[in-house]
This record gives sequence, C-alpha cells and structure tokens, in this order.
Amino acid sequence: MGKEGKSKDGKGGKGNFQLKTPKGTRDWQGEDVVLREQIFSTITDVFKRHGGVTIDTPVFELRDTLTGKYGEDSKLIYDLADQGGEICSLRYDLTVPFARFLAQNSTQNIKRYHIAKVYRRDQPAMTKGRMREFYQCDFDIAGAYDPMLPDAEILRVIKEVFEGLPGWKGKFTIKINHRKILDGIFQICGVPEDKIRTISSAVDKLDKSPWDEVRREMVDEKGLDPAIADKIWEYVQLKGGREIVTQLQEKPEVIANESAKQGLEDMALLCDYLHIFDVLPQLSIDMSLARGLDYYTGVIYEVVTEGSAPKVTSADAAKKDKKPKKSTDPDEDRSNDPTLGVGSVAAGGRYDELVGMFSGKPIPCVGISFGVDRIFSITKARNTEQVVRKTEVDVFVMAFGGGKDFTGLLPERMETAKTLWDAGIKAEYTWKAKPKWQKEFLVSEKGGIPWAVILGDDELKQGKVKLKELSLKEGHPEKSGVLVDKANLVQELKTRLAGKRTLPDRTVA
Amino acid sequence: MGKEGKSKDGKGGKGNFQLKTPKGTRDWQGEDVVLREQIFSTITDVFKRHGGVTIDTPVFELRDTLTGKYGEDSKLIYDLADQGGEICSLRYDLTVPFARFLAQNSTQNIKRYHIAKVYRRDQPAMTKGRMREFYQCDFDIAGAYDPMLPDAEILRVIKEVFEGLPGWKGKFTIKINHRKILDGIFQICGVPEDKIRTISSAVDKLDKSPWDEVRREMVDEKGLDPAIADKIWEYVQLKGGREIVTQLQEKPEVIANESAKQGLEDMALLCDYLHIFDVLPQLSIDMSLARGLDYYTGVIYEVVTEGSAPKVTSADAAKKDKKPKKSTDPDEDRSNDPTLGVGSVAAGGRYDELVGMFSGKPIPCVGISFGVDRIFSITKARNTEQVVRKTEVDVFVMAFGGGKDFTGLLPERMETAKTLWDAGIKAEYTWKAKPKWQKEFLVSEKGGIPWAVILGDDELKQGKVKLKELSLKEGHPEKSGVLVDKANLVQELKTRLAGKRTLPDRTVA
Repeated sequence: MGKEGKSKDGKGGKGNFQLKTPKGTRDWQGEDVVLREQIFSTITDVFKRHGGVTIDTPVFELRDTLTGKYGEDSKLIYDLADQGGEICSLRYDLTVPFARFLAQNSTQNIKRYHIAKVYRRDQPAMTKGRMREFYQCDFDIAGAYDPMLPDAEILRVIKEVFEGLPGWKGKFTIKINHRKILDGIFQICGVPEDKIRTISSAVDKLDKSPWDEVRREMVDEKGLDPAIADKIWEYVQLKGGREIVTQLQEKPEVIANESAKQGLEDMALLCDYLHIFDVLPQLSIDMSLARGLDYYTGVIYEVVTEGSAPKVTSADAAKKDKKPKKSTDPDEDRSNDPTLGVGSVAAGGRYDELVGMFSGKPIPCVGISFGVDRIFSITKARNTEQVVRKTEVDVFVMAFGGGKDFTGLLPERMETAKTLWDAGIKAEYTWKAKPKWQKEFLVSEKGGIPWAVILGDDELKQGKVKLKELSLKEGHPEKSGVLVDKANLVQELKTRLAGKRTLPDRTVA
Repeated sequence: MGKEGKSKDGKGGKGNFQLKTPKGTRDWQGEDVVLREQIFSTITDVFKRHGGVTIDTPVFELRDTLTGKYGEDSKLIYDLADQGGEICSLRYDLTVPFARFLAQNSTQNIKRYHIAKVYRRDQPAMTKGRMREFYQCDFDIAGAYDPMLPDAEILRVIKEVFEGLPGWKGKFTIKINHRKILDGIFQICGVPEDKIRTISSAVDKLDKSPWDEVRREMVDEKGLDPAIADKIWEYVQLKGGREIVTQLQEKPEVIANESAKQGLEDMALLCDYLHIFDVLPQLSIDMSLARGLDYYTGVIYEVVTEGSAPKVTSADAAKKDKKPKKSTDPDEDRSNDPTLGVGSVAAGGRYDELVGMFSGKPIPCVGISFGVDRIFSITKARNTEQVVRKTEVDVFVMAFGGGKDFTGLLPERMETAKTLWDAGIKAEYTWKAKPKWQKEFLVSEKGGIPWAVILGDDELKQGKVKLKELSLKEGHPEKSGVLVDKANLVQELKTRLAGKRTLPDRTVA
C-alpha cells in the first residue's frame, strides 16, 4: 500500500505539477496485483460453479438512473462534467446498473456476476481498504422462484468464497436479519411509520457505537419517545443461531404482527435450507443488523471478520477525552483513526422492488457484493509469509561465454526464445547483444524464474543446449545442468514443467 | 449488438425517464461477453508468455496529468464535475497513466500489460466497435536496452496475438514506419520545421482519403507549397517489404539526412530481428503511416485487416454526389456511414520522451495497444457458426417423478448439489419445491448443460442415482442414463467430465 499520493518531493519535475493518483485511489502493482488476481479467481470460480454468467455495464450511467436510489449517500456520487449532451454520473455500486439492465431488457431471470470498480466520494482510509475507487464482486439472482431457495444459494456462495480464500476458514461470520422482522419489531415497539427508516439507520450503527450513543441519536436527534427506544433495545440485543427465530415466534405480540410473522417464517425455512447446505455454523441471526440502503425488502446480511469492528468506539474515545477531532478536509486519509474498522467484507440482501422503480414491472432479486479491496487488505495481513512470484515466466534463455571472441549469441538466443513461444512456453532472454552471464543469472533469480536454457558455442556445434533448474542446491547431481538435444528442447522442457506443475496445462496445449 | 439505446418505447415506466445506457456505451452480455472473455484470455496468455506483469491504475487521473499529451484530440477527454477537491478527468488511453506511473515510482524497467476501459467523447459507430467507452489491451516495455530488441519483441507479441485469435490467421497486416524516417523525408522535401507535425497528420489520412484530398488539405488549409506536397507524394507511396529500406538507403539525398539515416538503420536492424522471429511475412513497411499522437519518437505501427478501411472514401462519395452530410448531432451513431471503416485493430510505437514530460527523467518505452472492441466485432463476424455456451455449468440435478405422491425431492436435490459444489463441480438445480421433470430437461437443454443427475425415490432407496449424458442421440446404449452408487457420484462425474474435457482441471483440484 502507500503508493497513493505524492512522489518523494511531492512534485513532479515540472513546476507545481503533482505527480500522484487522485485522493482515495491507488495504482496496483507487483505482489499486490498478483494476490488480488488470486482473490478474483477464487470468487469467479465459485460464481461459475453456481451457474453465474457475467454482464458488463458502462462505468457511468445517465444521472437519472442513479437518482433516488441511495438515500443520504447520494451526496457521495461522482458526477461527470456537463460537456454538452447527456448528463452522467459514475456508478456508485453494481446493483442499480443491474436493475436498470433488467428493466431495459426482457430478461426475466438470470444469475449474473459482475466484477468491476465503483466510485464513492467518501473520506478514504487507504490501509483499511476504504477507497474512493474500489472493486466490487457481485452475484445476484433475478427471477420468481419458490421462497428462500435463491436466498439459500447466495448464502452458500458466501460460504464457499470465504472458505476458498487463504487464511479465512473459520474466521468469518455471516450476520443476517430480515427487513420484515425488523419493521415488525419497530411497529410492535410503537415507532411511528414515518420514522421507521431513520430509526432503522440508527440501529444499524450498533456495530460501531454503544447503545447509549445510539439511544441518544434516536431520542435527541430523531425525537423518538425514550420508552419506545428502550423497548427497541430489548429486541435488538437478540443474537444467535436459529433459536432466535424460535424465541421470537414464541412471543405472542411478535407473531401477532403480520410483517414479523412473515419474516420469521422466511427465516425458519431459510435455516432449514442452510442446514442442508452446511452454512448454519457460519450464521449469526442478529436483530441489530439493519443495513443502510432503502431498497432491501427481505433478508439482509453482512459478512464480518476480525478487524471489521473498530478497535475503540467513538464513545470510548470521547470518555478518554481522545475523541478524534472531525477533520475539516474530507480528502484526508483516516487510516490511523482507531474509531474506524475495516467494516463488513461482503453485504447484500433481497430487493424485490428496485427493478420496478425503473420499469414499473418488479422482478424479485437477491444478491451479495464482496468488497474485494477490504478482503485484499485482510488476506494480505494474514498471509505475510506467502511468496508470490511476480511474473509467470518459466524459462530464461541465456548464453554462456566471455572474452573478446564471445559473440553474445544474440540470433541463437532469439531463435531459441521463438521456438519456446511457438510451443506456448513462457520465456525471456536479455535484450543485450553481449550480456554478462553472471548478470543473466541474477536477473532470472530475482524474477524467480525456475529454468534456464544455456547456449554455448561448443554445445551448439554438437546440436546440444544445456537445461538448468535454477533452484537446485549445491551438491545436487544436476546442479550444473543437463545437456539435451536442441531438437528435443521443447519436449524436454514441457515434461519437466509439467512434472513441476509450474506451468498451467492450458498454455502448453 | 444494438443493446445500446432505448428500451422499446424509448422510455421507462416512469414519466420521461430514459431507460438506456449513455450514448456510445453498451451493456455486454450473453454470447458477446463469452467471446470477448476468450479474446482477453488469448491476449493475456501471450502477454504472460513474454513476461508481462499487470499494473492497474485508476479510471480517472488528475486533469493536469492528461493535459498537453493528446494534441487536437484533447477535446475528446471526459472531465469529472468539480465537486470540491481535486480536478480530475477520465483516462483517454492507458499509455499516459503508465508514463505517470513510471515517473512517480522508481521503476526503471518493466514489461507491463494493462487491460482496461478508456473513454473518448468521439462520435460513436457502435456496430463497427467505435465506442465512447471501450477496452484497450496494452503491452509496453520500459527501460534502456540494446537497439530494436524490445521493439522486435512487441512486434512478435502482435503476431502471436492475432494468430491466436479464431479466424485471423493470414488475415492481418502490420503496417510499420519510423518517425525519424518520416521527419527526415519531410525535411528533404522542404517542409518548414513548424509544419512537420501538421503535415504528418495530413499524411496519416491517406488510409481513408485519396491523395488529391490530402494534397488539398496540405496546400489549401495548411499553406504548404504545392511543389513540396508533390515531392512528399513521391515518398509516401512507397510500401512493401524490407526492400523499401534498401531502396531508401540507396538514395543519396535520403542518406544525407541524419534523421532518415538513423531511422533506416533502426529499420534494417529490426528487419533482421523480425526475420528470426518470423514476423516479416506479416509486415508492410508503409511510408504513408504517420500516427496522430505527438509522443512517438521511433517506430510506429498499426495492424489492419479486411474492414479496417472504409468501403468508399469521402471523395468517392462526393463525386457520386452522395457525400454524407455532416451531422449536427455529435452523439449520432455513424454505424451506417460508408466512409467510415473499423480502423486499425491495434496500434503503437516507441515513445522515449513521454515519461520525461512528467519527471524530467526520460525512460525509453515501446508498446502496443489492442483495440478489443473492434477485434471483437470482426471476430464475431468471422465466427458466426461457432456455438458458445452461455454458462459453464456441467451438471443439472433433477428429480424424476410425478403424481400426487411426488414430493419433489427438494432436500435430496439440495444435498446432492452441495456434494457436487464441495467437490468443485459446477452444478445447478431448479428452485422449485415440485418441478416438472419435462421442464427441467428443457432448462438444462437450453443452457447446454452436458450432464444430468436424476434422483428418484426407488433409486435412492437402493443408494443409487442416475447419471445421464444429455447430448446422446436416440439409440445410444446409454441414452436413458446409467445407475451409479450415490456414494461414488463425485468420482463417477469427475471421470466423465475429465474424459469429455468439459471441465477445466483447475476447478476439480
């Protein structure tokens, strides 16, 4: 990390020109990009295992498409300048473009995945993976099916993704709730209908703020009767396995509420299905989970892990008189703010009305969005010892020789590289007419390249080349390499590379 | 194609809201996205075979980073709105962000590839792959090496990419020229120093306009002496193999020009290398190739194919009095304009000064950019008979039965799907409690799913399930399927899938 921001002197070579990426964005390179590609690959494999097909939508949408979908967060949308023609904004997530796609096309059902960048003008915290440009990996199921079956499949997808990532097995929890249960509880407690969404937003803060702070927001800022707030507290503390559903179903006042009753029936059925799919051990039914976005209508869930919650809450910090002063610069990075955790690493839910907002014809949908940059930050921290090769090159073609008669064997090296490329083998040679062999060994070592093909005048006259495995230790019988017929080089290499499993099969086809 | 634009009635369900993607952009879905992924995969394999590593830069840059890099085309840059904070623009290509990256970091040499979308507010022609949001696939080599060796490797990469694409072998030409030769020729002809770039731009139009039109532009619009223009015409007609280099080297006035002499030496050496790499058959040395961008300093090249040039030139159209009237709406699609071809499908060159524009410390670079959306349009047209599977699902889990006692076997189907997913096998089942088996067969057939696992009450009691290969013809002995032990299902399927090569090895690990 830390590649964001300025070059060493904060300036480029020219005047007061800033040589940097925009705030909240970064370049991805080297081992970071290799690890991130591995994460994409794990996630994509799971999506395809469940029949997902991909749809790619433009990075910007007509501004009207995004308007009215994100509530208070709309202020974080990046707008394009008005340069004549249509008025557009960068996408804020992948869900609204997907809903626009469904409304625009005649598609009635689809399992689609989409891996792409989204844009939010939020205050960044780079080292925690909170950025203004970041990747989302979304999997959504659209279509009318029997109750809770697509929902169960999404939760199974979540489990497979996190169990497939290095260092995550047993280290994630899927928090789940249901909008209908939550809305029912608010009704039972006596929250006025027009305050339900705003009180719901307050409840959602319980993962990072203590109850007395959330209560103060409800009562002082949002004008809720303190007795109602206290009644809410009795419910939102409930957290646990499927027994939570049973407990709530046993309360007469809960089951008398139609919304809560329906939500609890959904949850009970979902738990039956998740038992078959072996997802229950990772599930935490949590009445304090509310999710900010307006468009959810059924189950909602968030995946949390160690580091999701902040180290200290803002109330703790206030008590210790260390409350971080609110920065006046919204561009300032908050990586060192202890009241800020990584947040959830995946989140989603059911949204049955969103498509209808566009077309007037609702299509029921349920989905999950994986926050890959946060997942990356945590995976990197958990796998510090893993060695990642920066390139996939398998063979370095070099010449051995020296002195004033040494030609450098450039045409021979080029011809050998060509032969390897023709066979689909990943190979490099040095772009120098007369390279020093010592330096060539250094370059191949630095790149972690496993094999060298070494050309020499004498060997070439006999139609031979030397094959050397660069990682062999002193004393190994093949340490100094083996001579093979030049005509058999490709076959000799393919056999060795296949044995070492350093070359994926598809490239040696 | 044709998914861009409006829904059927030009409106969504709500008021005058437009349900569409912005002009010049489109959604990618279905077979199109599968074919495009195959193209990406072919290109990426070649990049990795040559040691490429990827770098991912933000979709927008500080506006200052892009300023002064694109000459006349700067007007096509998309700006972000000023919402406070930094002033940014969407990237116009991947080259300038790469140069900014090199200048900002201490990287002195790298082979980097980058596959990402770029943005140009140009007049679109969707069916010809000319869009406002489109993918580029770039491969660039930065660093100081012996002359023409990185250049030769880039040209070899071009050859491998196009020979790897279905329907392209023998159907592409790499047009090549050298800025130093071209600048030398302009000096020899007597073009004033301050007119060289603008005359160069005019010459570049010779692939779509006849000479008399280009000459008129030089003389009437750009004030060039007609005698000089006619002298230029003698040179820019030269086109052919490496004999062009020899012909020019034999002209005393050419070899007396230092710029032309150097350029020709480069080209001669490059031809030696390309002979070894077997790229000469695809090469056309073409003195009329000039390339628009200012930052090239050495070799320049463009890949063309059938369809690159327009069917009729604008002069032809004018003669026939059918000159398309210049549209007053820059958003209007030009797909049906016969004076517009697909254009080049890849282009690039050497740019040794661009990094120095940022840092004051030049790093020599050479690269190639593949225009994937244009390549897609042509590949699709050339492979109309290829059947592309929309999903990668290999197994459909279904229940056989009916009548009022039929339970639908939902838990059993779910449990079987779970077992397959656990083994990494791509599987689906129907999200209905009691699906009709006839419909299940239809669904799996429509999806091109090759195998079915069929559950039945009687078979399950014996611990058996039926495996059925869906593509078998009537009369085949296994047409009605084979019974296998449920406990062996995964192994039975893996063996069959491996034999059929329908499942990539990596997912059955």
